[in-house]
Amino acid sequence: MTLSVSEITDLIRQGVPLAGETGFFVEKVDAQGRVWCRQPYRENQLRPGGTLSGPSMMALADAAMYAAVLHRLGRVEMALTQNFHINFLSRPAPRDLLAAVDVIKMGRRNAVMEARLYSEGGEDPVAHATGTYSLPPA
Amino acid sequence: MTLSVSEITDLIRQGVPLAGETGFFVEKVDAQGRVWCRQPYRENQLRPGGTLSGPSMMALADAAMYAAVLHRLGRVEMALTQNFHINFLSRPAPRDLLAAVDVIKMGRRNAVMEARLYSEGGEDPVAHATGTYSLPPA
Amino acid sequence: MTLSVSEITDLIRQGVPLAGETGFFVEKVDAQGRVWCRQPYRENQLRPGGTLSGPSMMALADAAMYAAVLHRLGRVEMALTQNFHINFLSRPAPRDLLAAVDVIKMGRRNAVMEARLYSEGGEDPVAHATGTYSLPPA
Amino acid sequence: MTLSVSEITDLIRQGVPLAGETGFFVEKVDAQGRVWCRQPYRENQLRPGGTLSGPSMMALADAAMYAAVLHRLGRVEMALTQNFHINFLSRPAPRDLLAAVDVIKMGRRNAVMEARLYSEGGEDPVAHATGTYSLPPA
Repeated sequence: MTLSVSEITDLIRQGVPLAGETGFFVEKVDAQGRVWCRQPYRENQLRPGGTLSGPSMMALADAAMYAAVLHRLGRVEMALTQNFHINFLSRPAPRDLLAAVDVIKMGRRNAVMEARLYSEGGEDPVAHATGTYSLPPA
Repeated sequence: MTLSVSEITDLIRQGVPLAGETGFFVEKVDAQGRVWCRQPYRENQLRPGGTLSGPSMMALADAAMYAAVLHRLGRVEMALTQNFHINFLSRPAPRDLLAAVDVIKMGRRNAVMEARLYSEGGEDPVAHATGTYSLPPA
Repeated sequence: MTLSVSEITDLIRQGVPLAGETGFFVEKVDAQGRVWCRQPYRENQLRPGGTLSGPSMMALADAAMYAAVLHRLGRVEMALTQNFHINFLSRPAPRDLLAAVDVIKMGRRNAVMEARLYSEGGEDPVAHATGTYSLPPA
Repeated sequence: MTLSVSEITDLIRQGVPLAGETGFFVEKVDAQGRVWCRQPYRENQLRPGGTLSGPSMMALADAAMYAAVLHRLGRVEMALTQNFHINFLSRPAPRDLLAAVDVIKMGRRNAVMEARLYSEGGEDPVAHATGTYSLPPA
């Protein structure tokens, strides 16, 4: 019943056109259960200083958290973001951006998740986000 | 020396291509000094349920906060977002989205701002965001 | 049916012993409907540098938000904090600390509030907080 | 040069009287480098519903993050909290509360940390917090 990473990618791209436009896709679920997603680098993500804009980083974090919900719950009606918080840690280079999502709480009514964003090839996270999502009734 | 709303719009669109793609513009500065910005409705902002996606709302809030910095400080090198927090309050209709930004603190090293987002024609905010920006040395 | 400021103070002090220990009280509701609360200065609020500690500021903001819920809804079973976010803006002097709370959203299931904290006699806020509270079923 | 857990406890209790009043202490640094702290249960931490109040949980998270700074940097002048964000996940029982802190970023000018709070004997976190601290010049 678990959705594959390509099924999750398709569901998100169909539901959220902007995510599709960025080239977003779910890459893998690692041994710790973290869902990894990738946003390919495109020039329109830049902002002055040659680094990626805040909104392009927030878009990846939000889509990756939604991917983690779909990985856990299967083909559910879309969860709604209730709140979202992000700390920007360093300026990402103009490269692909990766997100690794941990589920902190999966309750009946809401889910709380944490995303760490990495620049392709970088070891330290460039941003850290948390988000709460209200879940549709089962 | 104060930049006009169209000058601020141009600076943001030149610096942040994604903001330009959304049709973002600065509309006015009201009598209380709040900077108002508008993101025209486009179909790619939708998400399941016929409402606007979280990232499209976060993008408007972030660009509007940057507009408020430019309004206060003039043509400065771009400020960097340090942290951003948003509470989603209700589902915005598929219409233009407006942001009204208040400057809470304008220090030497950073600025803290608050944005309220409204659906065109709506009285109650659909989201409330705060953000901290590090400012370039004078 | 609206509770008086001293009734709200009593309810909070009875329910939350720590708030009572700080000397917290509700001072007034102003013409804009903002609920103002005060935390008298005490030496145990200090931290190195001669300024007030973060937790003593957070405690005031949280209690003041709860006061605003009681002002709006009357004698309800206590609301539960779901999330809380605070930006510290400047170092408050060792004086009384005031909080002014605005209700951003009062829904059926939750309330979202904003608190600005001021040092006694100061014009600019020393901290800005937002919080979401889940409300008990009516 | 690294401070022991009891030296860190002493520094925090001397600097922040409120932390001392709660009985706060640093318990250990685990193999992953996480700093664990404990806040002994006391009746004045209660709130209606028989659970711990939000401010008592925030106080532990803030003190534990400060402990993690002291563990990394040694006897530095106190760091100042810039922003703090917490998601409450479930109602903690009236027992000791534990905090485990991870350092997400230790930069020259600021540090970003994450704290997970646990009820004594519980497996799932009862709250998740992030905080940014500005560091004194070296």
